This record gives sequence, C-alpha cells and structure tokens, in this order.
Amino acid sequence: MANHKLLLLPGDGIGPEVMGQVEKIVSWFEKQGLGSFSLERGLVGGIAYDTHKAAISEGDMKLAQEADAVLFGAVGGPKWADVPYQHRPEAGLLRLRKDLGLFANLRPAICYPALASASSLKPEVVEGLDILIVRELTGGVYFGEPKEIVTLEDGSKRGVDTQLYTTGEIERICAVAFELARTRRNKVSSAEKHNVMKTGVLWKQTVTALHAKSYKDVELEHVLADNCAMQLVRWPKQYDVIVCDNLFGDILSDVAAMLTGSLGMLPSASLGAEDPATGKRKALYEPVHGSAPDIAGKGLANPIAMIGSFAMALRYSFGAGEAADRLEGAIADVLGAGTRTKDIAAPGANAVSTTEMGDAIVKAL
Amino acid sequence: MANHKLLLLPGDGIGPEVMGQVEKIVSWFEKQGLGSFSLERGLVGGIAYDTHKAAISEGDMKLAQEADAVLFGAVGGPKWADVPYQHRPEAGLLRLRKDLGLFANLRPAICYPALASASSLKPEVVEGLDILIVRELTGGVYFGEPKEIVTLEDGSKRGVDTQLYTTGEIERICAVAFELARTRRNKVSSAEKHNVMKTGVLWKQTVTALHAKSYKDVELEHVLADNCAMQLVRWPKQYDVIVCDNLFGDILSDVAAMLTGSLGMLPSASLGAEDPATGKRKALYEPVHGSAPDIAGKGLANPIAMIGSFAMALRYSFGAGEAADRLEGAIADVLGAGTRTKDIAAPGANAVSTTEMGDAIVKAL
Ligand SMILES: CC(C)[C@H](C(=O)O)[C@@H](O)C(=O)O
Ligand SMILES: CC(C)[C@H](C(=O)O)[C@@H](O)C(=O)O
Repeated sequence: MANHKLLLLPGDGIGPEVMGQVEKIVSWFEKQGLGSFSLERGLVGGIAYDTHKAAISEGDMKLAQEADAVLFGAVGGPKWADVPYQHRPEAGLLRLRKDLGLFANLRPAICYPALASASSLKPEVVEGLDILIVRELTGGVYFGEPKEIVTLEDGSKRGVDTQLYTTGEIERICAVAFELARTRRNKVSSAEKHNVMKTGVLWKQTVTALHAKSYKDVELEHVLADNCAMQLVRWPKQYDVIVCDNLFGDILSDVAAMLTGSLGMLPSASLGAEDPATGKRKALYEPVHGSAPDIAGKGLANPIAMIGSFAMALRYSFGAGEAADRLEGAIADVLGAGTRTKDIAAPGANAVSTTEMGDAIVKAL
Repeated sequence: MANHKLLLLPGDGIGPEVMGQVEKIVSWFEKQGLGSFSLERGLVGGIAYDTHKAAISEGDMKLAQEADAVLFGAVGGPKWADVPYQHRPEAGLLRLRKDLGLFANLRPAICYPALASASSLKPEVVEGLDILIVRELTGGVYFGEPKEIVTLEDGSKRGVDTQLYTTGEIERICAVAFELARTRRNKVSSAEKHNVMKTGVLWKQTVTALHAKSYKDVELEHVLADNCAMQLVRWPKQYDVIVCDNLFGDILSDVAAMLTGSLGMLPSASLGAEDPATGKRKALYEPVHGSAPDIAGKGLANPIAMIGSFAMALRYSFGAGEAADRLEGAIADVLGAGTRTKDIAAPGANAVSTTEMGDAIVKAL
C-alpha cells in the first residue's frame, strides 16, 4: 500500500475547523488499513502573513511541491483587509495554483436531493442537477502581464490587466473537459465571448479543432459566457460539462454552486499535468466556500465540502476510487438520516456542530 | 414643443417586428400633440453587412451622431456566422457605443408582479424585485489594446485582450450610479475583483474616494463580482444599484434579467456625457433580449422591452418623464389585464401576437 504525502493548509476563518474533520477521516482510513498517509501541515493566507509576513512561506511552497496532494481550507478575513497587496491572503492560493501548474479546476455543482428545498430556485429546476464546471486556472486575466496601476501625468491613474491565452493552454483544459464528459453524459459546453474578445475567438477555434481531431464522439456546443450565466439560472439541467477560462469560470462556477443550495457542501479539485515519467499530477483540493470569518470558531461550519474535497483527492490523486465512493456514500447516508449543520437545516430545526457532523460521517463509513 | 430627432435601427431577427410597435407609439404621441419627432431609419448588424458590407455604414453613423436618441432593436443570427470578424453584426453595436461615447449603460431588472411565476426562482425571492445595474460601456476588456491573435514561432497562436480603466472612467460611471441611487433606495453596490485584478484595485479605490468626497449620503458597499453573481441568485433583493465594469456588467445584468422571468420585457439605456454647452447627452436605447432568429417573422416576439426602451428615451433624452410614466403605466395595465405574448403566457394559455400586443398598449395609453 503506497504511502501518500498529504499537505494540509487549513488557512483562516473556518478553514481549521473543517480541516479538523478531514483529519479524523484520514485516521479512520489508516486504522482500517485502507490507506497510508504522511501528513504535513503548513500555513496559508492571513495566518501565514501574521507568522511569516507572506501569504505562504517558501518552506510551505516546498512542501506543496513535494506533496502528492494539498488539502486547502480557506483564506482571508477582515483582519487582513489592509495588508500590502502582494501579501493579501488570496495571494497564497494564487501562488499555489500558478507554481504547481494546477491548470484544471474541476467544480461539480450537485443538488443533493435532501437539500433541493434550500435552493432559491424552484425545486423542479434544480432537483437532480449534476453539472461540472471545468475552469482554466493558471492563465487568463489572473496572471497575464502587464498587470499594474500607473500614475499618469495629470496625477490620475490607469489600471491594466491582461487576458492572455495560447492554443496550448486552451487545448489542454478542453481535453480535460472532453475526457471527463466521456465518463458522464458526454456533452461539453464551451463558454467564451468570441463576439467581443480575441481570446474568445481563439478559444472557440481551438476547442472546435480539438473536438474535430480527437473527440467527435462527445457533443460540443458553444455558448456565449453571458448567455451561459443566464441559462444556468433559467434551466441548468441543459448542461453536463461547462469548460471556460479562468475569469468566466470564477463567476459561472459561483452561480452554479449557488443554484444547488449546497454551497457549504461543494468540493473542488485543481489538477496539474501528468508527469510522463511518474504518471503523477500535482493537485490541490479545496471547498468552494470561503473562510466565513463571521462564523469562525463557533462550531457552525459545515465540513462536508472539505470532506468531499478529500474524497476527490482519494479519487484523482490516490487512485482510490472505491474509498472515494465509500466516503461520498457516508456523506449521503448522514444527510439521508437528516443530520444537518445549521447552514442546511430548516429554519428552527435542530442542527449539529462541525465536530458532530465530522463524527457522524466517520461513523457512517 | 421641441422636435426630437430619433434614429431607428431595427437590425436583424425580431428587431424590425418589435421596432414596428414603437413606431405606433410614436405616432400616437404625435397625434395627441404630446410630442414631435422626426424619425430617421438606418441599418445595423447583419442586414447592414448584406447591404453595405459593414455592420453599420458611415452614413448611418452620421445619423446616429446627429440624433437626439437612437432606438436599437437587435443584431445577429446564424446567417452571418462566417462574415469577417470586423464586420460581425455585434461590431455595429460596439461601434455605436464607442463612437457616441455611451459610457453609462442602465439595465433595470424588474420583476413584474404578473410575471413572478415565470421566473425559475421561488416567487418570494423575486416578487417585487427592482434593481438597477449600471454598467460601464465604453472601456475595459471590450476596447483595450492590444487586442489581437498572434501566430507564434511554432505555429501555435496567442490571443490577447486588454482590460484598461482610468480613474476618470471609473469616476464618471460611479457618479451616475450614486446619482441614480439617490432617486431610488439610496444604496450602491460596487462589484469588482480587487483580489485578482489591478483594475479592480483601482476601481475600489476610486469609488471609495468619490463616495467620501461627494456621496456620503448614499450607502456604498463593495462586493466581489463572483460573489455578486452568487448573491443575485441567493437573495437579489439585497441590492438597489449595482455598478461595475463592462465585462462584469455584461454577465451580472444577464443574470439579473433572467431572475425576473421578464427577459423579453427589460429595456436598457446607454448614455453619454452631458454636453456642457447644450445640456444634451447622446443616447441609445435597446431591449436586453437579442435578435432571437428562431422566432423572427412569426409574430411571436414580445415588443414590451423595445417599447419600454422608448419609455426610457422619453425620460432620459426628451425630458418627458410624464409621458414615460404614462407609457409604462399602459404596459402595466395591459399585463394586469392578462394580455400575454407567447414568451410570458402560461403553458397552453392563449397568447397575442407582437402586433396585437403593440395595439393593446396603444389602446391603453
Ligand atoms: C479567492 C479568489 C482569488 C478565488 C478566485 O478568484 O479564483 C476564488 O474566488 C475562487 O473562485 O477560488
Ligand atoms: C452583443 C454583445 C456584443 C453585447 C455585449 O457583450 O455587450 C451584449 O451581450 C450586451 O450585453 O449588450
């Protein structure tokens, strides 16, 4: 049984609480002899700045480079509103994505039947929803240069960000989308704004050519990103896999997550390219929700998104699909039995704490 | 009674049908002696390309420059999927916005009580919704240079778009938002991604400074654009006026429009700066919906968004607030009486044609 190197970066806010529940799950798998993990722990975000004056230290970056998978909690909070820009909590996450080459961000948006009523959408619109957003994560306007604010002669300023994409960057993310669609309902919707952006024109051309060359068995449709956001609200079940650039993915995946009413429950995976020598790929797993500073430390956080992120790690990084199924099954069982943290409990109904939810999932395993 | 120069650019698809209904309204106002309009007509979009080999001709651009207001229908359709990029139908609209300096795009998202059930959202989430998106329309990634696709040495390509904003551009759009908030519920939510984009940093700084200087009586909140999209789905009534850049505005306004279930009903106004000499501002009014080629020519289109856009012209370009109220009142009356085009009729219920809806509104005036 291989030993897996796992780096835990709990971060800020509710990050440490939800990460604590994953640690219990990891112990359980080890005790059952179902996996062997060596855990490292590091700091990221505001807490890293407080300790190292950087949103992630060089030492922790090194650990991340060496790990088989990184589990990331959440970063940020009002405490760090005024730290220097390059040290803001998010900079730690962005550096991890970029330096580890995690170009493929997988964001499932699943409406758990038990929670359909928590959505702001009508039940018939979201019941049974299961879509996957495949977001490019290391390019686009997030990282393109120039990216700066310059002071003009009259004292006013000009801000610049640069949206850049190469054929190669577009091909590799779209290939991930096509491959995943084959394991699902076999449809890819590619979202861009080719009517306004040159990167959109290149995106559309590239995905069309890749499809014709290698993925004719998969259905491909093109949709303008603004229309895609609209269609997600109107009738999201028309989608299977949506592939898009970094910035559109940021917004579309948030819309998709909110549709499901399961925001505190959605995991995500960020994957790098496969190393041809070892067959391994770098990976980071994180909940879709943020650090929720307002409820931090109160035992109110829902650990399911974090635990589900560990299930994704089992599946994508550790080749342990069965263990992942088992963990996801345990989550479903616990929900089916009516166990709820406050965010997903009916108003006035009983709710369990973060720890109790973690314990219930361990018990259901 | 001043004579108003109105340029009609019906465009493609359902554009001409819905514009036809506005012409009836214009005639009615003239016959009643409530307004005097000189109408010009021009071509834009695919039909302009077919005629002039350009998405808008120089002659029609000149008419647009001279008009007190432009009424724009919709552009595009599968027929023009392969025209050269610089002549694609949207290029006509983008040129009008840029050359007329229409930096302020006002997109109300109103949930008509009679239509609340048409939304995919739960009625309690959208009933009574009345928000206004103020979108910057002549800057950002839509127009920044470089904007190109270059071929690299290895034959692959790189696409580039440039997001650019100056302090002045941000100030003038945010001032519009603050002024409009004062006539509404006095709250502005400024949406950007300062955690990732330098233009977002400048945007946040600039709106904060402008608020402190001139609009302290208005409530200002900052929201990340991805979170704003989420919050629009979760609980849109938290918003009054949302101000944002061109690209975020494109997406957020589509989400907001779809929430209301009234997509075929929402008008928009695009305004330029006030000319200090004449007190006039250039303006273009258009429905939020597109050219809907699939239903074009069938009498199925809902003309309310186009007619509502003329109401906005009465209010913002012709200083005829009372006439605008009257026209909007007529629309509400017709809806209240149960008159419905197919897009807003209950499944299986009787629906009227585009022309019948236009006639009903004239009658209700
Ligand atoms: C925290 C922030 C930098 C990040 C992003 O914009 O990518 C977040 O919104 C996300 O979607 O993971
Ligand atoms: C047609 C297109 C160029 C346009 C835009 O992207 O601005 C449209 O989506 C809109 O919102 O008016």
